[in-house]
Amino acid sequence: MPVGLLITLLKMKKIRAAVVGYGNIGQFTLQALEEAPDFEIAGVVRRDAGDRNGIPVEIPVVSDIDELKDVDVAILATPTRKVEENAVKCLKKGINTVDSFDIHTKIAELRDNLGKVARENGTVSVISAGWDPGSDSVVRALLEAVAPKGITYTNFGPGMSMGHTVAVKAVEGVKAALSMTIPVGTGIHRRMVYVEVLPGYDFDKVAAAIKADPYFASDETHVMNVESVDALKDMGHGVNLVRKGVSGKTQNQLFEFDMKINNPALTGQVLVCAARAAMRQQPGCYTMIEIPVIDLLPGDRDKWIHLV
Amino acid sequence: MPVGLLITLLKMKKIRAAVVGYGNIGQFTLQALEEAPDFEIAGVVRRDAGDRNGIPVEIPVVSDIDELKDVDVAILATPTRKVEENAVKCLKKGINTVDSFDIHTKIAELRDNLGKVARENGTVSVISAGWDPGSDSVVRALLEAVAPKGITYTNFGPGMSMGHTVAVKAVEGVKAALSMTIPVGTGIHRRMVYVEVLPGYDFDKVAAAIKADPYFASDETHVMNVESVDALKDMGHGVNLVRKGVSGKTQNQLFEFDMKINNPALTGQVLVCAARAAMRQQPGCYTMIEIPVIDLLPGDRDKWIHLV
Repeated sequence: MPVGLLITLLKMKKIRAAVVGYGNIGQFTLQALEEAPDFEIAGVVRRDAGDRNGIPVEIPVVSDIDELKDVDVAILATPTRKVEENAVKCLKKGINTVDSFDIHTKIAELRDNLGKVARENGTVSVISAGWDPGSDSVVRALLEAVAPKGITYTNFGPGMSMGHTVAVKAVEGVKAALSMTIPVGTGIHRRMVYVEVLPGYDFDKVAAAIKADPYFASDETHVMNVESVDALKDMGHGVNLVRKGVSGKTQNQLFEFDMKINNPALTGQVLVCAARAAMRQQPGCYTMIEIPVIDLLPGDRDKWIHLV
Repeated sequence: MPVGLLITLLKMKKIRAAVVGYGNIGQFTLQALEEAPDFEIAGVVRRDAGDRNGIPVEIPVVSDIDELKDVDVAILATPTRKVEENAVKCLKKGINTVDSFDIHTKIAELRDNLGKVARENGTVSVISAGWDPGSDSVVRALLEAVAPKGITYTNFGPGMSMGHTVAVKAVEGVKAALSMTIPVGTGIHRRMVYVEVLPGYDFDKVAAAIKADPYFASDETHVMNVESVDALKDMGHGVNLVRKGVSGKTQNQLFEFDMKINNPALTGQVLVCAARAAMRQQPGCYTMIEIPVIDLLPGDRDKWIHLV
C-alpha cells in the first residue's frame, strides 16, 4: 500500500466492525481487522462472553450485539445455518452485515430474503463472502464473461472439508474425524477420511457407515483408522479453477486460477474486505460478483487505479 | 448459458453497438458481437468505408459514426492514442464508449478526462477493457484485497508485443519485425526480436539500434535476422500473474492466475462484455475494477447467481 494512502486512511473516520462468533473464522477475522487501516473493532459477540479466549483486553466481548456502541457492520462468523437469523436481526437494527454463507444451492434464496430486509431498513448485506463462494466466484464469473462458451471446473484441495468432517463425526462409533478433499480433476474429488474409533466399535462397520452416508456415497472414499486425528490437522487448503472456452468465435482459450492458502485466514480477510464494501453499496443484498472489486480495497478509488 | 436465459435474452431489446476501427481487434470484436445474444451490430466505422474487408453485407460500413442509426455504444478498436479523441466525440453525441486503452501510466488521466465529458453528457465510458489492462486488472485488484500485504508479479507471454513490434519497425533499415515478450519470472521479460532487413543495411548495426531503443534498453534483448517475419507470427499470448502475500496476519498465501489465449479474440470479447456493462452504469468513466463482474454477463443478475 502506498504510504500516502496509508496516511489518508489513518485520518479517515474508521468503520466500526463487530465480529459475531469466535471460532476459527472469527479469530482470523479479528486478526484481519487488527491489520486493516480503515477499521476499528467495536467488539466480539459470543455466547459465553466470559470466555475471552485470548482476545486482547481492549476489545469488548459481549453476548449481545446491543451491548456494543455504534456498530457499522457485523461480520457474521457463525455457522452457516445461523447466518440468516443473525443477519436479519442486525439489518433491522440498522447494522450492515457480511457472512461467508457456503451452501451454494441456497445462496439465491438467502439473497432474496436478506435483500428485502436490507432495503426496508436502509442497510446492506454482503453474503457468501469467503473464498468459495466468494473470491473464487469473482474469478468464475469473470471467466464466464470473457469466454462465454466452455466449461469451468473448480477443483478443491487438498484440504480439510468442514462439512464432510462434521458428517463423519455424526456417524456412530466415531470419536474424532477429519475428511480431506483431494482433487482428481474436472471437478471430481476423492474423500480421504481419517477417524479415531470409540472403544467397542468395529472399524470396518464404521467405515462402511461413512461410505454409505449421502455426503460420501457418490465420491471415491477411503476411510483410515488412525491413532490421532489431531496430529493430521492442518488449515491449509487449495483451489484449482480451470476454464477452457470460446471468446467470440475463437476456440481453446485457456484460463487457470490456483491458490494454496490458510483457509480461515483467507475467509477472515475476504469478510473484512466485504465489510468495507458493504459500507459503499446502496441498501440491498449482494454477492461478491455484484460488487466492484475496487470496493474491497481501502480508501479512495483514485488511489487504486494503478492496479488496472 | 442456461436455455431459459437464452430465450429471455432473445426477447429483450438488444444493445446496438458500433465497432470503430477494423484492424485485428475490430475484426475479433465483430465476431464477439455476432455471438452475443443481447447485441445488435449497428455498423462498422472505418476510414475507408469502401473497403469491406470481408464484413458481412448486412452490416453497414461507414466512415463516420453519424451515418449509423441509434448507436447505444461505440466499441473503439482504434489505436490507443486515438482513443481519447474518438471517445470524447461519441460521449458528446450521447453514445457510450468502451476501449482497450493500454498505456498503463496514462489510465488515471484518461479516466479523469473522459469522466468529466461522460458526466456532462449523461453517458458512460468504460476504459482499458482488454485483458491487460482489463480482465487481469480485476484479478490483480482482487488478490490485492484478499492478501493486502505482498507482491504481485504479472508475467506476460510468450507472445507478440504490439508496442515493441511497432518500435522495431520504426528503426531505420527494418523491413519487417516481430518482437516477442518472453517471461523470465518476477515480472521480468526477455525480448526476442525477429527482423527482416532492407537491402543495403547492415544487420549488426540495425540490431544495435534496436537494442539502444528506449523500448529495449533495459531488457535482455536478442535480435534475430530471419527470412520471413510473417512465417513466425501467431496471435497467441499468455499471462502468469502471481501473488504471494499476507491475509490478516497469516503469511504465505499463494495465488496464481494463468492464461494462454488468442490475444485479439480475448480483447474483442472483453470489449463486448464492457460494452454491455457500460449500459448498466451511472454516467461517468470506469475501469474494469470499478464495475461489478456480473455486469459483464448478459441478461438479469438473478440468472447468474449460480456462479457464486
